Amino acid sequence: MPKDVIISAAEEKDPANFALANCIRALSIDGVEAAKSGHPGAPMGMADAAAVLFSKHLKFDASAPLWPDRDRFVLSNGHGSMLLYSLLYLTGYEDTTIEQIKNFRQWGYHTAGHPEYGHAGGIETTTGPLGQGIATAVGMALAERRMAEEFGSDIVDHRTYVFLGDGCLQEGIGQEAISLAGHQKLNKLIVLYDDNSITIDGDTSISFSEDVPARFRACGWNTLECDGHDATALDAALTQAKDSDKPTMIAMKTVIGFGAPTKGGTAKVHGSPLGPDEAAAAKAALGWDAEPFDVPADLLTKWRDIGARGAADHAAWLAKFDALDADLQAEFTRRINGEMPPELSDAVAGAKAALFAEPQKVATRKASQMALETLTEALPEMIGGSADLTGSNLTRVPAVDSQFTADHAGRYIGYGVREFGMAAAMNGIAVHGGLIPYGGTFLVFSDYARNAIRLSALMEIGTIYVMTHDSIGLGEDGPTHQPVEHVASLRAIPNLNVMRPADTVETLECWDIAVRSRKTPSLMALSRQGVPQLRMDGTENLSAKGAYVIRQFGEGRDVTLIATGTEVSLAVEAAEALHADGLNVAVVSMPCWELFDAQSPDYRAATLGDAPRIAVEALSTFGWTRYVASEDDVIGMRGFGASAPANILYEKFGITKEAIVARAKALTGKS
Amino acid sequence: MPKDVIISAAEEKDPANFALANCIRALSIDGVEAAKSGHPGAPMGMADAAAVLFSKHLKFDASAPLWPDRDRFVLSNGHGSMLLYSLLYLTGYEDTTIEQIKNFRQWGYHTAGHPEYGHAGGIETTTGPLGQGIATAVGMALAERRMAEEFGSDIVDHRTYVFLGDGCLQEGIGQEAISLAGHQKLNKLIVLYDDNSITIDGDTSISFSEDVPARFRACGWNTLECDGHDATALDAALTQAKDSDKPTMIAMKTVIGFGAPTKGGTAKVHGSPLGPDEAAAAKAALGWDAEPFDVPADLLTKWRDIGARGAADHAAWLAKFDALDADLQAEFTRRINGEMPPELSDAVAGAKAALFAEPQKVATRKASQMALETLTEALPEMIGGSADLTGSNLTRVPAVDSQFTADHAGRYIGYGVREFGMAAAMNGIAVHGGLIPYGGTFLVFSDYARNAIRLSALMEIGTIYVMTHDSIGLGEDGPTHQPVEHVASLRAIPNLNVMRPADTVETLECWDIAVRSRKTPSLMALSRQGVPQLRMDGTENLSAKGAYVIRQFGEGRDVTLIATGTEVSLAVEAAEALHADGLNVAVVSMPCWELFDAQSPDYRAATLGDAPRIAVEALSTFGWTRYVASEDDVIGMRGFGASAPANILYEKFGITKEAIVARAKALTGKS
Repeated sequence: MPKDVIISAAEEKDPANFALANCIRALSIDGVEAAKSGHPGAPMGMADAAAVLFSKHLKFDASAPLWPDRDRFVLSNGHGSMLLYSLLYLTGYEDTTIEQIKNFRQWGYHTAGHPEYGHAGGIETTTGPLGQGIATAVGMALAERRMAEEFGSDIVDHRTYVFLGDGCLQEGIGQEAISLAGHQKLNKLIVLYDDNSITIDGDTSISFSEDVPARFRACGWNTLECDGHDATALDAALTQAKDSDKPTMIAMKTVIGFGAPTKGGTAKVHGSPLGPDEAAAAKAALGWDAEPFDVPADLLTKWRDIGARGAADHAAWLAKFDALDADLQAEFTRRINGEMPPELSDAVAGAKAALFAEPQKVATRKASQMALETLTEALPEMIGGSADLTGSNLTRVPAVDSQFTADHAGRYIGYGVREFGMAAAMNGIAVHGGLIPYGGTFLVFSDYARNAIRLSALMEIGTIYVMTHDSIGLGEDGPTHQPVEHVASLRAIPNLNVMRPADTVETLECWDIAVRSRKTPSLMALSRQGVPQLRMDGTENLSAKGAYVIRQFGEGRDVTLIATGTEVSLAVEAAEALHADGLNVAVVSMPCWELFDAQSPDYRAATLGDAPRIAVEALSTFGWTRYVASEDDVIGMRGFGASAPANILYEKFGITKEAIVARAKALTGKS
Repeated sequence: MPKDVIISAAEEKDPANFALANCIRALSIDGVEAAKSGHPGAPMGMADAAAVLFSKHLKFDASAPLWPDRDRFVLSNGHGSMLLYSLLYLTGYEDTTIEQIKNFRQWGYHTAGHPEYGHAGGIETTTGPLGQGIATAVGMALAERRMAEEFGSDIVDHRTYVFLGDGCLQEGIGQEAISLAGHQKLNKLIVLYDDNSITIDGDTSISFSEDVPARFRACGWNTLECDGHDATALDAALTQAKDSDKPTMIAMKTVIGFGAPTKGGTAKVHGSPLGPDEAAAAKAALGWDAEPFDVPADLLTKWRDIGARGAADHAAWLAKFDALDADLQAEFTRRINGEMPPELSDAVAGAKAALFAEPQKVATRKASQMALETLTEALPEMIGGSADLTGSNLTRVPAVDSQFTADHAGRYIGYGVREFGMAAAMNGIAVHGGLIPYGGTFLVFSDYARNAIRLSALMEIGTIYVMTHDSIGLGEDGPTHQPVEHVASLRAIPNLNVMRPADTVETLECWDIAVRSRKTPSLMALSRQGVPQLRMDGTENLSAKGAYVIRQFGEGRDVTLIATGTEVSLAVEAAEALHADGLNVAVVSMPCWELFDAQSPDYRAATLGDAPRIAVEALSTFGWTRYVASEDDVIGMRGFGASAPANILYEKFGITKEAIVARAKALTGKS
């Protein structure tokens, strides 16, 4: 069909929707032109669907972006960010002004290249890394169902809508999300697939020839297909989707860069400005004659009315909420605000006292299980899970011992062998609000989930990663399963608390920090093998300082041993041997670098001391020169592990008391 | 069906195959029992299929594990490693003796917890991290097709067989592989799916309810279903699969831990030894009465005959190979051996001379394109690609400008938006032999591919990663697309050359190193923004030292500036300013830490010098204390980036000439 015919067909089908969509298209063109960079193609192609969704289906109130029962809208193809910013401006979100649109992709404005969570109302999650939007949306839908189960569907009853493109479907994480959503029958999840046959490299036929709807159906989805520029068909499809008992995918055939006369329908319009001539021609073809960034008053009024459309729903919800039992209201509000209940401190103190009363020699993954028993009991917002390693991660404890299924939104999610999908879904649960997600896998497979862990940190949300089998100490499974560089590589991620506790007490303390850290994600590195309990008294959460002197042998220091996790007890053994030989030794346990680096210079200097320092960690030595003088002062791994029993590996790789003692003597010149 | 009935049904169908399969089952039981750890369930369940495949279909010669035209066998569910080790021992691979089987998972033996490439004949790739086996196998099948196109199907005509389980199909990378294989119609790829309805957490119904064959069909595969313990049905299915013009997936319904009377068919047999009682009962149920690790002579003879079954094929192949044109023989041998042609050095020298004659101020990704033009011309074994970012990565150059399609195995692969799948496929191409794969994406998305990059390093193979847009210098796309911690986190991986070249000359040198490094993978971090050419003469590959003095201002040193990539020219500017103020300054360009750390202590000391040092890199400061005294001496990033033009970001984040100068003056006490 010639392009002018396609345009007039869209207009004829529904002139009002066409006009609304043109507002999005014009602003998207203008924003990208002004920035001289960006992606106009997707916003232009999805504008009709966005107009139908926002004007007729999406439950939202632009004046109340945080209304807990709003529908969530996720732009999984986040490069089409001008679509979202246009919608936020048009519907009247207070913080997205026309100045924001004019300063797309500029320093100091929240209209970033890709939508960033927390920067403005209406941005429900950070998107751009493809496939993660849909996977995060699955988490939102899981959270909605859990919250509805807890607080009733009078208070929690909303949908999650996702726009996505071919990239999200080519990415493996997209499939993980689709498979999990179908399995859980998340029928309030509705996906609109921007089926425009174009990716950056050109036609999708270069690399992608599958039958997408058939794949979704194989995974238990309801699928619909329609013309993405036909407002009537889109409206009908959305209406049908809302009635399904399965998640729905609407494959909408679209033209990328719809309206651009020469570049529309080609990869040229994907990720570059149209250029002045094509921009002008596109506007002419669309019948748009306003100045750049100007939206005719009548159309802006219509859009603002759409933005206010949900006010009545919102008011009705508030009335229902006010009618709730006061305790339930307070609990809901506490949960949504991410506040801790006052009982938490007592519960943790009680658990700590119990450990002091009966010290436990266990693996730190087991210590984590014990901590979780306390915390999940105290915090009904905690929702657990594992990527099919429940018995290894020890993430399932009595309070969460109810499976999340299609029929019952329990407190434990079987994520399947889908680490990346799990991590992204946990991010979705976290940004949804009201819940604290934690989920487990082996530390080595943090690699699979890594970009979602990064997004937790970038979004400043409190997702908790339970990563067990944290060193060569896992033994026989061998180097494919033994983390070496992982802790270092995770420490390098900004705003991520990587915690490697030494014993039961530190593990409890680290968990206490993790559940309270609602703006910083936490990653717990936990052992397979047992360690003695080192801490026997004290109420203060010493792990919150990141590092502290856990043992002092003699007065002053000839040497300081810094260790983490399972190697703290090894360092204590070495220190005992050194002290027996006449050296004064401090042992510093350092469960969390990030927290330590945030302490005062005085505290850090006093803790690290002036004496020569040795670091001990059965992981890559990479990065330890932050605290010790030389790589030679790190007792750690310098290559990959091997398949053998753990004790043999420690010996073969030289992570031993003897090696620590020898290095200490060499450094101090005492023998 | 009761378990004893299932067993006798399998025996009745094909007693000979049943007996062969029992050898695998018995050895697998014994190996895991002796190690007191491991995964007996998968080997016991897949033994019948393995016996059919090896005895009737797989083209191999146990006496010649490296025969280039052998069929490849990939155990994607690598935890079932005893299946593979049993097969290698039974068919007579020389290095897999019964001692190896007896010492499963022990130090000093190659029978590791998961199969490790390069440790023994017949292990075609390292598996264990789920989903990567099938994705690597896709690479092998791509390689086979390309080599056949180049050398003819008389010489290259083999299949790739994959065993996989539910985990591989739940992992997103599995779908990436399936989708790509279907798109490319890789009909010599045959997958046997161990459909046993069990994962670690229990029944697959906890998390996995999709119609797997329907998903494969949606992706263009031929699918077959059969009883995985019915040798006749398996034989028929494999025969059919070999005739298909599409890749084939055979869903074989199996019982995990087949033969174990109480634990068989349950998760209990997945990852733990059967225990002495259950092991004895299983052997009794299977009618196996030999001593542990003993295989009755008649059965061992049958297996050894299977191992020798391909000798005639092998001899016929050798005859065909001998009949080839001598040049073609030599070229094939050179390619399979991973040797460089003598012309390469001249080609690189010529390209370098051209750069000296006409210096280029370009982005290092553009410099990479220029280097690739030379190298792909000189090395017909190079096969390029990109995860849908060809125009950004600049990976497609004239010599490889032929698309790999289902009809024509060209030299450029459109991997689609599948970074992880691409990386694993490249590993498959590399281990197949005869080709050097390189592929591009944005550096930030190395996160998606990270575990496959790790496997390249662990396997000691020469996969080349082209990672562009390597810092905040990419500008407006914002923090989701700006790598910060990535280079540090990649440097932490053992045996990976992370290279961040400073200009056209270093980029050419790094590429020269990369193509010659056949035992160490290389990852090139390349810029979006332009940089001046700094090197104007010299024939030596200075980048091969990892770091070297690129500029010296004055005699001796008051301060040393160490920089990488785009920040080397910034450091030179700062050094000029410092020298104008009377300081003597050396600028060290450090394109590759790994190569520098491998130099002699004298060279390292001379290069780094005794003067105070400052590091400059527009990335996370993490790790730089290896070379400088303090984090404060690193001019770099301490958090995530932002969306704005690149020059503004450098200024806002303090990565400027002024900041370098100020720190240098503070350190030297000169102002």
